[in-house]
Amino acid sequence: MKVLIKGGTLVDANREYRRDLLIENGKIAQTSADIPDKQVDQVIDASGLLVMPGGVDVHTHFNIDVGIARSCDDFFTGTRAAACGGTTTIIDHMGFGPTGCNLHHQLELYHQYARDKAVIDYSFHGVIQHINDAILDELTSMVHEEGISSFKFYLTYKYNLQDADTLHLLRRLKEVGALATVHPENNAVVNDNRERFIKEGKTAPIWHARSRPVACEAEAIARTINLARLAGDAPLYIVHLSNGLGLEYVKLAQAQCQPVWVETCPQYLLLDINLYQRPDALKYILTPPLRPHGEQDKLWVGITDGSINTVATDHCTFPLSLRQRMAADDFTRCPNGLPGVENRMALLFSEGVATGRISPSRFVALTSATPAQLFGLWPRKGNLMPGSDADLVLFDPHCRTTIHHSELHDNVDYSPWEGFTCHGWPVMTLSRGEVVCERGRFTGRAGHGRFLHRQPFSVNRG
Amino acid sequence: MKVLIKGGTLVDANREYRRDLLIENGKIAQTSADIPDKQVDQVIDASGLLVMPGGVDVHTHFNIDVGIARSCDDFFTGTRAAACGGTTTIIDHMGFGPTGCNLHHQLELYHQYARDKAVIDYSFHGVIQHINDAILDELTSMVHEEGISSFKFYLTYKYNLQDADTLHLLRRLKEVGALATVHPENNAVVNDNRERFIKEGKTAPIWHARSRPVACEAEAIARTINLARLAGDAPLYIVHLSNGLGLEYVKLAQAQCQPVWVETCPQYLLLDINLYQRPDALKYILTPPLRPHGEQDKLWVGITDGSINTVATDHCTFPLSLRQRMAADDFTRCPNGLPGVENRMALLFSEGVATGRISPSRFVALTSATPAQLFGLWPRKGNLMPGSDADLVLFDPHCRTTIHHSELHDNVDYSPWEGFTCHGWPVMTLSRGEVVCERGRFTGRAGHGRFLHRQPFSVNRG
Amino acid sequence: MKVLIKGGTLVDANREYRRDLLIENGKIAQTSADIPDKQVDQVIDASGLLVMPGGVDVHTHFNIDVGIARSCDDFFTGTRAAACGGTTTIIDHMGFGPTGCNLHHQLELYHQYARDKAVIDYSFHGVIQHINDAILDELTSMVHEEGISSFKFYLTYKYNLQDADTLHLLRRLKEVGALATVHPENNAVVNDNRERFIKEGKTAPIWHARSRPVACEAEAIARTINLARLAGDAPLYIVHLSNGLGLEYVKLAQAQCQPVWVETCPQYLLLDINLYQRPDALKYILTPPLRPHGEQDKLWVGITDGSINTVATDHCTFPLSLRQRMAADDFTRCPNGLPGVENRMALLFSEGVATGRISPSRFVALTSATPAQLFGLWPRKGNLMPGSDADLVLFDPHCRTTIHHSELHDNVDYSPWEGFTCHGWPVMTLSRGEVVCERGRFTGRAGHGRFLHRQPFSVNRG
Amino acid sequence: MKVLIKGGTLVDANREYRRDLLIENGKIAQTSADIPDKQVDQVIDASGLLVMPGGVDVHTHFNIDVGIARSCDDFFTGTRAAACGGTTTIIDHMGFGPTGCNLHHQLELYHQYARDKAVIDYSFHGVIQHINDAILDELTSMVHEEGISSFKFYLTYKYNLQDADTLHLLRRLKEVGALATVHPENNAVVNDNRERFIKEGKTAPIWHARSRPVACEAEAIARTINLARLAGDAPLYIVHLSNGLGLEYVKLAQAQCQPVWVETCPQYLLLDINLYQRPDALKYILTPPLRPHGEQDKLWVGITDGSINTVATDHCTFPLSLRQRMAADDFTRCPNGLPGVENRMALLFSEGVATGRISPSRFVALTSATPAQLFGLWPRKGNLMPGSDADLVLFDPHCRTTIHHSELHDNVDYSPWEGFTCHGWPVMTLSRGEVVCERGRFTGRAGHGRFLHRQPFSVNRG
Repeated sequence: MKVLIKGGTLVDANREYRRDLLIENGKIAQTSADIPDKQVDQVIDASGLLVMPGGVDVHTHFNIDVGIARSCDDFFTGTRAAACGGTTTIIDHMGFGPTGCNLHHQLELYHQYARDKAVIDYSFHGVIQHINDAILDELTSMVHEEGISSFKFYLTYKYNLQDADTLHLLRRLKEVGALATVHPENNAVVNDNRERFIKEGKTAPIWHARSRPVACEAEAIARTINLARLAGDAPLYIVHLSNGLGLEYVKLAQAQCQPVWVETCPQYLLLDINLYQRPDALKYILTPPLRPHGEQDKLWVGITDGSINTVATDHCTFPLSLRQRMAADDFTRCPNGLPGVENRMALLFSEGVATGRISPSRFVALTSATPAQLFGLWPRKGNLMPGSDADLVLFDPHCRTTIHHSELHDNVDYSPWEGFTCHGWPVMTLSRGEVVCERGRFTGRAGHGRFLHRQPFSVNRG
Repeated sequence: MKVLIKGGTLVDANREYRRDLLIENGKIAQTSADIPDKQVDQVIDASGLLVMPGGVDVHTHFNIDVGIARSCDDFFTGTRAAACGGTTTIIDHMGFGPTGCNLHHQLELYHQYARDKAVIDYSFHGVIQHINDAILDELTSMVHEEGISSFKFYLTYKYNLQDADTLHLLRRLKEVGALATVHPENNAVVNDNRERFIKEGKTAPIWHARSRPVACEAEAIARTINLARLAGDAPLYIVHLSNGLGLEYVKLAQAQCQPVWVETCPQYLLLDINLYQRPDALKYILTPPLRPHGEQDKLWVGITDGSINTVATDHCTFPLSLRQRMAADDFTRCPNGLPGVENRMALLFSEGVATGRISPSRFVALTSATPAQLFGLWPRKGNLMPGSDADLVLFDPHCRTTIHHSELHDNVDYSPWEGFTCHGWPVMTLSRGEVVCERGRFTGRAGHGRFLHRQPFSVNRG
Repeated sequence: MKVLIKGGTLVDANREYRRDLLIENGKIAQTSADIPDKQVDQVIDASGLLVMPGGVDVHTHFNIDVGIARSCDDFFTGTRAAACGGTTTIIDHMGFGPTGCNLHHQLELYHQYARDKAVIDYSFHGVIQHINDAILDELTSMVHEEGISSFKFYLTYKYNLQDADTLHLLRRLKEVGALATVHPENNAVVNDNRERFIKEGKTAPIWHARSRPVACEAEAIARTINLARLAGDAPLYIVHLSNGLGLEYVKLAQAQCQPVWVETCPQYLLLDINLYQRPDALKYILTPPLRPHGEQDKLWVGITDGSINTVATDHCTFPLSLRQRMAADDFTRCPNGLPGVENRMALLFSEGVATGRISPSRFVALTSATPAQLFGLWPRKGNLMPGSDADLVLFDPHCRTTIHHSELHDNVDYSPWEGFTCHGWPVMTLSRGEVVCERGRFTGRAGHGRFLHRQPFSVNRG
Repeated sequence: MKVLIKGGTLVDANREYRRDLLIENGKIAQTSADIPDKQVDQVIDASGLLVMPGGVDVHTHFNIDVGIARSCDDFFTGTRAAACGGTTTIIDHMGFGPTGCNLHHQLELYHQYARDKAVIDYSFHGVIQHINDAILDELTSMVHEEGISSFKFYLTYKYNLQDADTLHLLRRLKEVGALATVHPENNAVVNDNRERFIKEGKTAPIWHARSRPVACEAEAIARTINLARLAGDAPLYIVHLSNGLGLEYVKLAQAQCQPVWVETCPQYLLLDINLYQRPDALKYILTPPLRPHGEQDKLWVGITDGSINTVATDHCTFPLSLRQRMAADDFTRCPNGLPGVENRMALLFSEGVATGRISPSRFVALTSATPAQLFGLWPRKGNLMPGSDADLVLFDPHCRTTIHHSELHDNVDYSPWEGFTCHGWPVMTLSRGEVVCERGRFTGRAGHGRFLHRQPFSVNRG
């Protein structure tokens, strides 16, 4: 099976260049100035389009059980939405299992969740629910046999780690060749605020944001960065950064060449705390919460100056109807999370590339190349080199499209981006050479997606 | 004559507080929780409104002769527009006179320009066209007799100063108690680029921006900051900052406690270089030019973190019709400058305060208190203390208004802000106790405005 | 009783100026260009000398019981040494009492320790050993009745606080008008390292330093800064800063105008980790430990750029003989602490002022004015204004003196500064007008020193 | 000819490792854990020693004619001194020739100067005395035929360039593949100060320093960095950095990935402005002048954090006797420059490595690897890889040696380092496999040194 993409402008993390691109058997076979369309099964006209590596979204939560609810996207609806937005790889979180369960328990479960459902390729992050010798031992086989080379731990919520456990975990992850990822918020602060606010009757959505202020997140970022250094420079990936002070802490570490990387999400770049004053505020409950507007400016500076390394989504869907039923008068009862897997690429392209803040190559670095490098998928994903998987997204840089949830492909009942107009839009997505979405129409199939056995972490790739 | 403003929220550079405000004979007489409306000539209902010091716009160019054209606003239309936008004081530039003319020549001329025309209070900046002993001598009487305590010099254009002259000027300005203000762009770079571009036929508006890149401005900022230090820490005010690198240089100086302040303008916070690709690009020709979008993020961070000290307009109007006639196919023939004196307050309130980036008090600091302090008008202007001039603007923080040039009060034929919707709007302006604008209707009169004899510069006020 | 100091150069935190200084009844009565020596009881010739406020050392540990030992300086030997080094006020730590004891218990004890012994004026810091409602309640009377307006808590050692307790304490301290001071080291990291090292037989002195690396301290600094912010910007004073990363965290907070101040000590400015490789390494066991040499450069930059606010000593003496007996082959058995109260002024003068890094006025700010302001002793201490206590030190800026422990006045058996030559030396100290030391000879008396009832913390003084 | 270095610890810019090193025909043939000493002509016992690439000093001025004098070291005495200090390559400056002379004129002259004299390998920097089309044209052949791939220009002195010329030169240097190097001082400031000081009779040596303050250098650094950016990111190397503000400007550029590198010299790290108050102050007249002590701290931070890239000497010798004769009572008559080529390695090792500020590998990067990379000598010089020239220095890290000019090998009559004790000392130097110095005894010969035809500048090597 040969597919020829003609007339487009190829964009990878280093450059833009006019080239045709030939796909054979799901892999990129050749890029060249003019490839003849003979003996080719399918020709795709990419005139006026940008041909880029498909998105790698390393932060989703399909099927997640957060205790009070289960997210409503599974590996079919979730990856379908991803595919329709130009994302061709996701790494989902294997959490949370029964208290005390081991890592393989969750791995088996998530293989079941994903197999026969995923429409694009996928992997999983391990999720640390507790630390003991058995868990620390299990990490070796997870990395080297199961191909799971990243593990997330939390500093808040039920499974928050204390410093000694964090230290032991980080040391061990470095030893086994895995990347640590962290949800950084100070648990004592959150609990103290929530208790006080509940006592004072402050349970409207805005108090969700006020219970988890900027410094609550920034503190945990500084702490984890230092514990990672104390663990012998264990590689560390900070998820969903939402504020500028945390970024300053990251920059100090980067300036000392510590192996630390940081991710943000479109919601932190484009939405702000004012939304919690609106009647539909429950739509926007997530952690960390949306921030005062000025934090956006600081994050955008990080996007343009290179200190922010990736953009992911933290896609974690709970229907608005459910939120309203559970948490109409108490934010602490609202399950946390926002939809977003389908709109990441368009939003960042529109506000990043179309505005002129970043180049198309920097867009590729943020959305696919760097995530693939950090998470053991390079060079298979995230680039346009011959031999790599033909995971592609074709962007029309001039198309203006307004987001309506009615046209999205997830399984939730609203979008935080309703009515947002994007400049630039993903008009076609290919997964290993197969067109899985074309102009908003899903053309893929459940079960096409394959589990990606990831390589151990290597700092040289990052 | 007594005027009572009842029910409003007073805002000065330090705080917001519910108070009534009584005006007597054009001065603030009293602020108090509840002032009875007996024996008062006029009562203004300020319920739901913010009562703030009227704006002080220290950067306008009325009547300016730039050689190839003269700006089309005079002290009547210009100050009328200012007043209708909530600005109650302007400091205009006395330039440019005939080559070789002295400072008093221009002062006399500008007194003629302004007298009987201005509808709000005003002063002038001296403009340095050349340096010699006579000019350096003249500075003393300008400051101490004429009340002109700030002088601008240019590093580009016809009257650009070389380093030795800059050094001598800065030393002298410090001696006589004046604040130096500088237009910082590297003249050699601009000229070199323009020559090359013209030779290569690159005369479309976008080349205006490319002929004066960020580093061209940033270089001149760093140079002037260092020359000011070498002149014995001469106080320095940098006008119309448009980029983040220049701001970094300013911050390094501020961190060493050097007396340096910096101004930006709404156009650099809200408009970008992409506009030069539009058919109406000539509307946006000004210097420094509009910048890549990412510079806006950096300037907003400066607005919120305090490193940017003031927001002014650089109002300098040349009709679009004139621009099109003169410069349709050559940007070098286009007179530089943008209208803006009427929309500064609304734009900064909307994008600064209504978004949550800054507090109302910080808004007052940026638009009136700090300019008044730096330019020798404090405490007469820029605050709400008893004894100060009753120059006030009443803001409705919830009013949404879309800017249409047809409703503005200047003398030009377009607005760069056409169609921009502001959240928050100045609904009434008072100059020394007289209502000069109410809900968009000009109610003042030519000649009401008085010349302000300014005090010498004092760092303690700044 | 009148004392006249003639011919000296007065130095306070703002300036140097030639003035005579007249003392009446222990207070500064007058400073003037030429005060006649009539009707004066004593005339002191200060020709060629700098006359400065006596030092305020806010960090000493006399009589401290650290469990395995008790420090060997009491309020007589300790303050005698201080006085002989030019320090006229000390604030000692009231710790540690029996587990569970309240604050007044220690206060009573320390009043006993100091009364009839101290040769210069003194106060105490409260020391937090645990948090409960009783302790939080007790803070009010400590501040407002007892005059104790600062309290120290530890993040390591036996009485380390967890985050929730820290948060509650910081909130309460702000409410009652007290300054929080913190010993910042991550307890989990220290314990983990010590356990590992002991298991591996790594018990030589160098492992003391390696068990408490830079990031171990820096983490705790960032954490406490953020908890202070989350407690509503509770004022925070960080003691004995030893590294550059921690200073970067402080600077980020200062840039946001958070009320955070930081102290360093001469040992961190002048001694380094290499000393732990010497045979007499036990002399240098203290916490935080001495650092790699490069940290000194960063601290000196902080001294010169103003980001470090004070220099104190952390004087806490355990004889070398005791150290050798207890800890010859195991650093974990060595009591922590260094002598230093007598040499702080000379060392900082020599390496700071004589080298040209800082001005004499900045020296005064670091050693007396700022400590007095932060700790509720201003303007009684730390300046030369009429009405202030006549606590003075006369420095000979040209005198070169080599430190020998045999000539010092403490009660320990070595000095870490043995053989160090100082440029500039304190040649006379006056406490409330009485000469307590002259050219190295102690002339004071036990019981002269009085307890200082300190004012509540006020940020405006700081 | 085979030489075997046995038992040493090899140090390159990346690591330290125990290896023997075999030299064949002047090149490194092999490094291995244990190389048998059979069939080897010479065995050198390096037990306890560090075996490192010989130093590359890219900043010397032999034979330079500065108008009022000629430096007294030629290519024999100068390179002999270099060799005896562990330096095996120098790049000297081909300046100054007769006004208006072209570049080849000087090249021919310097080939004559060096040939038959140099005892180690050498190259030359071009020196720009003026800009015109002929000079700009000549650059191509200088780089591509003559092997001269770096050119220095001055912003002060007789041949200072104006901005337009600087811009043209930088653009051209980038085109032809050359690295620009700059002496950055603001000429207008220097001249203005000198005129004023002379008029006021301020001609003692201290006024030399005051006539060229920190901001005078920093300004020129910022200017040149920005002009290099405006020239299309022309690669730029800033020589002899002496202050912290300039370093901040460099760091801002580095953070934006601009190709800018910066050199400092031992004198700026270790000597300070106080020396100009001594009777022998004339010994220390150089430009930029020695700085206030606090600048040293900032430079050392730059050495340790990586922002400073190289350490060179600016060796430029004028006898003290000459200085005293010419400039006893007027600093403006004193030729500028300091001896230093022989002590660079020992001084930086002692104060950098022995103190623990930097690792031995970082020492190699600063003194040989990075200079070799930037100046087109890599991998021939600056590393220990097989195939590279066997230019080596053997350091005894424990040897303490006090510098006495009587034991140095230059042709001047004093050393600014007289009496300075170094910890660590170069005990043997080899140039292409030949021992040229052993324990302070010169064993080389004039004419052994060869001209190095350098490669064009390539950013990837840097």
